[in-house]
Amino acid sequence: ADVAYLRSVLPSTTEDAFFDYLATLDASEVTVSAMPEGSVVFARVPFLQVKGPLLVVQLLETTLLCLVNYASLVATNAARFRFLAGPDVKLMEIGLRRAQGPDGALSASKYSYIGGFDCTSNILAGKLYGIPVRGTVAHSFIMSFTSLEEVQPRELPPLAGGEPVDLPALAESWLQRVCELLQTPPEKANRGELAAFVSYAVTFPRDFQGLLDTYCVRRSGLPNFCAVALALHQLGYRAIGVRLDSGDLAQQSKEIRRVLRACGAHFQVPWFETIPIAVSNDISEQSLEEFSQEGSEIDIIGVGTHLVTCPLQPSLGCVYKV
Amino acid sequence: ADVAYLRSVLPSTTEDAFFDYLATLDASEVTVSAMPEGSVVFARVPFLQVKGPLLVVQLLETTLLCLVNYASLVATNAARFRFLAGPDVKLMEIGLRRAQGPDGALSASKYSYIGGFDCTSNILAGKLYGIPVRGTVAHSFIMSFTSLEEVQPRELPPLAGGEPVDLPALAESWLQRVCELLQTPPEKANRGELAAFVSYAVTFPRDFQGLLDTYCVRRSGLPNFCAVALALHQLGYRAIGVRLDSGDLAQQSKEIRRVLRACGAHFQVPWFETIPIAVSNDISEQSLEEFSQEGSEIDIIGVGTHLVTCPLQPSLGCVYKV
Repeated sequence: ADVAYLRSVLPSTTEDAFFDYLATLDASEVTVSAMPEGSVVFARVPFLQVKGPLLVVQLLETTLLCLVNYASLVATNAARFRFLAGPDVKLMEIGLRRAQGPDGALSASKYSYIGGFDCTSNILAGKLYGIPVRGTVAHSFIMSFTSLEEVQPRELPPLAGGEPVDLPALAESWLQRVCELLQTPPEKANRGELAAFVSYAVTFPRDFQGLLDTYCVRRSGLPNFCAVALALHQLGYRAIGVRLDSGDLAQQSKEIRRVLRACGAHFQVPWFETIPIAVSNDISEQSLEEFSQEGSEIDIIGVGTHLVTCPLQPSLGCVYKV
Repeated sequence: ADVAYLRSVLPSTTEDAFFDYLATLDASEVTVSAMPEGSVVFARVPFLQVKGPLLVVQLLETTLLCLVNYASLVATNAARFRFLAGPDVKLMEIGLRRAQGPDGALSASKYSYIGGFDCTSNILAGKLYGIPVRGTVAHSFIMSFTSLEEVQPRELPPLAGGEPVDLPALAESWLQRVCELLQTPPEKANRGELAAFVSYAVTFPRDFQGLLDTYCVRRSGLPNFCAVALALHQLGYRAIGVRLDSGDLAQQSKEIRRVLRACGAHFQVPWFETIPIAVSNDISEQSLEEFSQEGSEIDIIGVGTHLVTCPLQPSLGCVYKV
């Protein structure tokens, strides 16, 4: 079918023998020598050498450039993010919605991982390439709840076993204590958000995480998270993290860390102060520099648009010389 | 297999019923209303509306954003190029080697065409989407010849029929006359380049085009092209164009047009002065503005990197609101 298509677009004077030749064409006489994928290469050093019949290696030019240009670009970009973030921060690739379609996004996930990222939100990339996958909670999930009445199921047994406990009620009682400690009015803590957190926690008690910025981080997201995490703690479970998706991420991370420390100290839950803080929202290299300058308390960073579209240099101009 | 993979990455407490539910999940209860593809939409106007069960429409969020964001971005970018180029210039998409892999390149070709481009160099995009395809000659093809001895076959019959003519010899005699007219030394016209042009012309006499900038446009590429095109003309054929891939494209296009006019007038070949001039080489919106300011004689423009990676704004931030 490909040859039939070519016949339809090439000049009618093209000889049949040429199409017969194309139909039998293969790369069996071509040898490719390349730097191992993931190697650091310097400018002006050939990283791929192709030997074979002239016509075949000419046909390979565009294909090979397509396969290496973006891959090298995004791996380099990922390495720059890793360099700025330092070795201890976890970097998560979340670029699917801004990539050049599904396949572009898969390349972005694969080569971000090679460039030093820790995980991806692209589940198919995880499945195809063995990259660790990580997810989070959507604002739409939080907003789909309005009150604790909607939580279903409600009961959670303690980790060590025993009688199941009504988690919404337990979280509600913790919310009073947390708000008292933080001196925030409990009525400002959004009930739908609390319901969403409790619903998440009752389903994934060992993997509870809170997205804090759907309503107000300080008066709602953070007290609600602490209440649910302390309720879980009472049953023997540990929350795994919080996430911010808007606002001044570095400043908020410091305030969140202060609150987590205060709760940990006051309620005698030492692990509380080390709960990982994850951020996202149009993160660029400049964002990472600012986080570092402001002494942020951020542990996990999700990078999407600025990773997969490489705005500082959106294309890499590798060339193929015959 | 997808469900088995999800089971391997989700918490072990996840209920079996959830995976059973996922296995039966489909979008049969989802309705999508969208603006027709290729429509002009204004900012803040919803262009896609999705209705259906909450969980299903939440799962569709990232997929839909991935499919519409880049498509809208590149179609808009293509329309900006079309606006700057005006209605008469042919615009050719040549971004495959800088796109995000093969699939990103296919999206780029499709949505550049929707945005107002005329054709693509991506043959698969032509086959899949019915986009007109156009190609050109590679510098490596020109450089693979060193002398007229290598041209094979050498004979071409006139279009109207009759005795085949030795095209290398005919082109060589025309080269003398052209060089005399242009007052350039014939020995500066590269023999390998002449051989490549003749070889192309003998194979595709109705579709001959010349890539002029492998050696020196003024002293080699242009005299060689005119010689072969005039030889073809003597046999009843018309060359279809020239292409430039380096240097000051607008200035060179004006010099080329002057030479084509001079040859057309001197050798009484009126169509010669309208031979289309195609250019490529990192063309941006700014390039098009400069072409227009300098009154260029360019007829066809190939745009690659700046079209498919949209450096002025490398991503479009469409959002999905529940």
